Amino acid sequence: MKYRVYVFFKNGILDPEAEAIKKTLHTSGFKKIKSLKKGKFFDIDTSGKNSKDEISSLSEKILSNPIIENFEIKKIDN
Amino acid sequence: MKYRVYVFFKNGILDPEAEAIKKTLHTSGFKKIKSLKKGKFFDIDTSGKNSKDEISSLSEKILSNPIIENFEIKKIDN
Repeated sequence: MKYRVYVFFKNGILDPEAEAIKKTLHTSGFKKIKSLKKGKFFDIDTSGKNSKDEISSLSEKILSNPIIENFEIKKIDN
Repeated sequence: MKYRVYVFFKNGILDPEAEAIKKTLHTSGFKKIKSLKKGKFFDIDTSGKNSKDEISSLSEKILSNPIIENFEIKKIDN
């Protein structure tokens, strides 16, 4: 079973890196960009049963910082 | 128009951070994890027409390092 876990800042958490990238886009001529958010993803292949629960647990405990980040899990079909 | 750009290492590029996370998962009891890959994503909102071309251009020039990374662009509907 393959899953993709998305990890991204909660609303209201400042992201200076994303702001810097957005500024660079504007100064590089990409002036129509209205907003840019940044996150991480992890593609995980597991042999476990009940693997959705396992992925949820490891996402909360290890892949994300629950104080400032949320995560979303999607199953990958192939 | 909203797009999500995925940036990830090309095949064959070593990713010690992903390896370290995988080891941590194993030592933390998540022993059924067979593989873990890591990447970044960017959610971009643009007001431009022909915006797919623009997003492709900025992904290659600014968001990714084409020597070691690939990118994929997906349109987000909402």
